[in-house]
Amino acid sequence: MKLNAVGRAIPETINGKPVVPFQGVGKYRPTGKKFAPNIASCADYPDDGNKLVPNLKEALLKAGLKDGMTISTHHHFRNGDLIANQIFDVAHELGVKDLVWFPSASFPCHKHLIPYLEDGTIHRIEGSMNGDLGRFASEGKMTGVGVLRSHGGRYQAVQDGDVQIDIAVIAAPTADAFGNATGDRGDAACGLLGFALADSQYADKVIVVTDNLVPFPCIPWQIHGNLVDYTVEVDKIGIPEKIISGTTQITKSPDRLFIAELTAQFCDAAGLVKDGFSYQAGAGGTSLSIGLFFERLMRERQIKARFVRAGSNQYPVRMLEDGIVDYILDGQTFDLEGVRSMRENSNHVNTSPFTSYNYHGKGNFASMVDIVILGATEVDVEFNANVVTHSDGYLLHGIGGWQNCLFGKCVILPIPLFRDRVPVVVDEVTTLCGPGELIDVIVTERGIAINPRRTDLIEKVKDKGLPIKTIEELKEEAEKICGKPNKPQFTDKIIAAIKWVDGTVIDVVKQVKH
Amino acid sequence: MKLNAVGRAIPETINGKPVVPFQGVGKYRPTGKKFAPNIASCADYPDDGNKLVPNLKEALLKAGLKDGMTISTHHHFRNGDLIANQIFDVAHELGVKDLVWFPSASFPCHKHLIPYLEDGTIHRIEGSMNGDLGRFASEGKMTGVGVLRSHGGRYQAVQDGDVQIDIAVIAAPTADAFGNATGDRGDAACGLLGFALADSQYADKVIVVTDNLVPFPCIPWQIHGNLVDYTVEVDKIGIPEKIISGTTQITKSPDRLFIAELTAQFCDAAGLVKDGFSYQAGAGGTSLSIGLFFERLMRERQIKARFVRAGSNQYPVRMLEDGIVDYILDGQTFDLEGVRSMRENSNHVNTSPFTSYNYHGKGNFASMVDIVILGATEVDVEFNANVVTHSDGYLLHGIGGWQNCLFGKCVILPIPLFRDRVPVVVDEVTTLCGPGELIDVIVTERGIAINPRRTDLIEKVKDKGLPIKTIEELKEEAEKICGKPNKPQFTDKIIAAIKWVDGTVIDVVKQVKH
Repeated sequence: MKLNAVGRAIPETINGKPVVPFQGVGKYRPTGKKFAPNIASCADYPDDGNKLVPNLKEALLKAGLKDGMTISTHHHFRNGDLIANQIFDVAHELGVKDLVWFPSASFPCHKHLIPYLEDGTIHRIEGSMNGDLGRFASEGKMTGVGVLRSHGGRYQAVQDGDVQIDIAVIAAPTADAFGNATGDRGDAACGLLGFALADSQYADKVIVVTDNLVPFPCIPWQIHGNLVDYTVEVDKIGIPEKIISGTTQITKSPDRLFIAELTAQFCDAAGLVKDGFSYQAGAGGTSLSIGLFFERLMRERQIKARFVRAGSNQYPVRMLEDGIVDYILDGQTFDLEGVRSMRENSNHVNTSPFTSYNYHGKGNFASMVDIVILGATEVDVEFNANVVTHSDGYLLHGIGGWQNCLFGKCVILPIPLFRDRVPVVVDEVTTLCGPGELIDVIVTERGIAINPRRTDLIEKVKDKGLPIKTIEELKEEAEKICGKPNKPQFTDKIIAAIKWVDGTVIDVVKQVKH
Repeated sequence: MKLNAVGRAIPETINGKPVVPFQGVGKYRPTGKKFAPNIASCADYPDDGNKLVPNLKEALLKAGLKDGMTISTHHHFRNGDLIANQIFDVAHELGVKDLVWFPSASFPCHKHLIPYLEDGTIHRIEGSMNGDLGRFASEGKMTGVGVLRSHGGRYQAVQDGDVQIDIAVIAAPTADAFGNATGDRGDAACGLLGFALADSQYADKVIVVTDNLVPFPCIPWQIHGNLVDYTVEVDKIGIPEKIISGTTQITKSPDRLFIAELTAQFCDAAGLVKDGFSYQAGAGGTSLSIGLFFERLMRERQIKARFVRAGSNQYPVRMLEDGIVDYILDGQTFDLEGVRSMRENSNHVNTSPFTSYNYHGKGNFASMVDIVILGATEVDVEFNANVVTHSDGYLLHGIGGWQNCLFGKCVILPIPLFRDRVPVVVDEVTTLCGPGELIDVIVTERGIAINPRRTDLIEKVKDKGLPIKTIEELKEEAEKICGKPNKPQFTDKIIAAIKWVDGTVIDVVKQVKH
């Protein structure tokens, strides 16, 4: 074990592969070449473009499914995904063992896979493990070590060949027999398919599965059929009502509303809400409310945002259609309005982890966003934050785009000071997912803490009537109310590694001691 | 020298690199990996996304311009390009030597480069050499050997690493400082930038030059800024009236009109003009007229084309807007209506040599087109065709997408039987660019010859009143009128190699003997 640049002990290898410990933000420089897939030839593909095979099992067999392979899926269907589980049903039926599942995220519906993790069909998950899967891992029951990456880190890992995908299965709401595919229409419409982009570009074999087969050409081709080996038509790839919520809920909690308003006031006081600005706000209740405060300010002042980074939903869509936002740069759509807008409006642009988040590119979009609103399960007095484990030590969330978004110009975490009487602001985060140097502001219902590095922000909001405190003051207030929190107890067994955006390891998660 | 599969003598090496002789259609199977560019890091690019440098010279210096490098440009501005020449002006000024120019095509305006070919600034051109540049090469004056590739072959060569681009310069009608770029708007609007796609993906350094800089994000991003190293703003990148013609002319020649009508009649008789069909027709006078005949048939019969492959112009745009064509899959726009339609209509889709033509992909679009209309300078009695040299032996044209389109389901060459009293149908083509097995039908003003391999077509058009002849009959008719043509005389010096779509060499062009 070696200490990395944020003082976390990191093993030499994980799953038998050598590990590069985190070296500090922007410190690690890659020296190699991008991963180079095999050269294909049209001579091996049908002239008429018809790559249909009868079913998923046939496609997996043709793709050469065998022990030890890495199988990737995307999470655009969220908890309504019907395909990922079927892949491993087939693998189990065929007696294939030791697979690596490489999803862009997992959801509660994937707890179906726990028996396959137990019987050796699946060796490990490299991807987020939410809910039951995370608990399973935290109990030390997964054979291999989980590897968690941000959305951008996942693209980086595939691009750089850190993860070599043998078979990518891309479930698509609409596709043609050639493999051109889109997420913006069809019964299972999810908006876009950006999380499957790396998989389509770099996997050895690519299978597109759809329940809405259209004649060539499927337009738009968010996924290029030129990268696809086989196509499969099935009855149903996802459960629409679980893919998109249909509505997105503004928070009704008075505390959260207050935090949202305080966050908007802070941004305004700091001069960030100005003509041509940009912001990223997710679809959580607090984030949505912050977006609405921004909207009100923009309408009052007759100013426009140049772009909104999203997770889109009805609210940014309304702003786009009303002309107070020039563009939505969207990574995933959260409601039907988002899907409709992406389909109809060329200024509602689908993005991918490549454009938005890949740290091993020639720049990405994340660092160009003026205001970034993020969550956290814990923040410590160094402004380091945790998004994957709870204070009880259980691994219950993925990283998503969180680490990538930390590169925004002003990163704000609007968080409650405590949850269920457990402080959120602590001495030291259980798992360090984001280094404090990238986190600028913590907004709680009991005050705002600005990272001392951001003397510019401190200066700007001085004497503006905001409840500015130090992070230590916030922590003490939390402890005064809740008491000093108990540290979770772990065994020595590493159950998951947390990658930084550059592929180095920033922390590990250990088995929870019962 | 070795004979290849079509009996042409091919050297062992060209420009010092080993050569694979053409082995027959679909016979050569690549075994390697795609080219792997260096892994970049956002740590080396500005956080605010501003990659602007003051001028092209500065950008070339930062990109490390030096002797022997390969510099690529695209030809979307056709004869109105103002940037390619400037690159070599800079190189000449700096005393850089032995460069390889790798354009997607060259035009008469590039004869400006002849002095640089003479003084050693440029070693050779790998790309089409039209007009004066071709004549220069044919006279044996270029230091290196020219290499001609189809549009798809160019993508293949870059993807496979046969050509490694050191610096790609992408002139863009609209771009942001991050390098996102589009061709569909701006003073120099050319519609799309597909010919620069491979360059952006695989070049070591990428420079975007624009005369219409917009705030981030430039939407659409036909070229991803995430692949771009430097951006440059200049006054003018192209001469609009030379980029697009503004109008596209239907042929007025009675002979050509007759050939066009005969071609359309043939397609109809063969049952190819049916609901849901597809066709590719270029922007030449004859091709345009054939498209109009198709349009009339479609309107009369109330049927629709699923897609038109284009070179777009006002006529397919009208069909798209009238709903008798579902999609235009466009590789380059030829008039302002094409540009407008691509900008406004999401069913007017920009394509690239990757999607349409790359033979080393998992299929491409070319083989899915029902009717393909192409030209030729010569066709021989084996249906082999030539598009690069004239009967006098001079290299005067590029291959364009011609070889790629030969994979269409029915490939028709509507050509005059002779030009300037020189027969077009001959015993043996001067340069063999396309093997006869892929060419199905020759339509001339004096009759139609169907490739004997296409017994299906011969059967279908039997007794339909069409002037069907053998290719030998057409050749004899031509010779009866014009006399037996003189063969051009060559020295032994190879001045250019003609690549097949898979990177093998199908023929070479030699120096013309005066």
